Amino acid sequence: MAGILFVISGPSGVGKSTVRKEVMKRCSGLRYSISCTTRPPREGEINGVDYLFVDLSTFEAMKRQGEFLEWARVHGNYYGTPRKPIEEWLKKGEDVILEIDVQGAKQVKKNFKGGVFIFIAPPSLKALEERLKKRNTDREDEILLRMTNARIEMQCISDYDYLVVNDQLEEAVNKLLSIIIAERCRIRKPHFWGGEK
Amino acid sequence: MAGILFVISGPSGVGKSTVRKEVMKRCSGLRYSISCTTRPPREGEINGVDYLFVDLSTFEAMKRQGEFLEWARVHGNYYGTPRKPIEEWLKKGEDVILEIDVQGAKQVKKNFKGGVFIFIAPPSLKALEERLKKRNTDREDEILLRMTNARIEMQCISDYDYLVVNDQLEEAVNKLLSIIIAERCRIRKPHFWGGEK
Repeated sequence: MAGILFVISGPSGVGKSTVRKEVMKRCSGLRYSISCTTRPPREGEINGVDYLFVDLSTFEAMKRQGEFLEWARVHGNYYGTPRKPIEEWLKKGEDVILEIDVQGAKQVKKNFKGGVFIFIAPPSLKALEERLKKRNTDREDEILLRMTNARIEMQCISDYDYLVVNDQLEEAVNKLLSIIIAERCRIRKPHFWGGEK
Repeated sequence: MAGILFVISGPSGVGKSTVRKEVMKRCSGLRYSISCTTRPPREGEINGVDYLFVDLSTFEAMKRQGEFLEWARVHGNYYGTPRKPIEEWLKKGEDVILEIDVQGAKQVKKNFKGGVFIFIAPPSLKALEERLKKRNTDREDEILLRMTNARIEMQCISDYDYLVVNDQLEEAVNKLLSIIIAERCRIRKPHFWGGEK
């Protein structure tokens, strides 16, 4: 049986990485797909662990060669999800977790009808803005851009299967874990993966 | 928003009650719908807690008056689910858990398109037979009947949304809990409850 593709998405600054990393500590049998990005590493980020940091020309070459399951330009930087490892893991029956932006999730949804799409939302837009300011990794104009995008992205919630509000971290982690356990118990109908490319 | 109807079903002797009771201890906001039955109480069973124990003529009067959401004759006894409390809880936004046999679940599925149907299965038919014998509440011919029915009931799994194999109790409880938490995070599409009668 094919593995399950879990797609975690939501506005920038909502805490996708924190929730996802905590879930992966507590849940075995989950493969994490590392994204490529042209964005410079933030403090503490490690190449090959958090992202594959590449320059623009490398990114464009990969794009031309069809190596991305999805790619997007977000806040002036490029992000892409390498296709090959994901397809191989799923084929072997291993579950895969993707952590990507809302634009990217939309592209993945077109290609993987059987994917499980989880939206991580802030308790409010005001709370999101405070987090972005506290994170202190973005300039003020970047924060404004992220907030504008967040407003648009929040309208996409109804395209997702699950909504997890990240108010208390522990609760959000527990909800995401529960979704993974539940989906592993879900009875998948025949041709469930018929939409898979 | 309407509450969620969780329907727990599976062969007789699989441990539905044990799993369900343990889940209800750990999960708040779940209403349990007590079934009516003409079956005599087993040792330790309390009227109004485990079942509403009624005689055949009371059961038939309730049936005539349309008071059951579903009813079935199982192993020579009648079982029925009173409709009214469930409909009222769901309307008030409270989640409801039903623990019923496979025939009954089939009837509920026709009436509640938005219900969440969970099949509790034994690790094997051999294991189920051993449990029924160990339970020591049924005569040998009753056990034979339960096993014949179990074989038929196991074919209905694909009509369900989730499968929980009750091998280790703690694991089965955790899975059922996860399904409830996950379903509470699920984004319900418009007209989700359109199928509700």
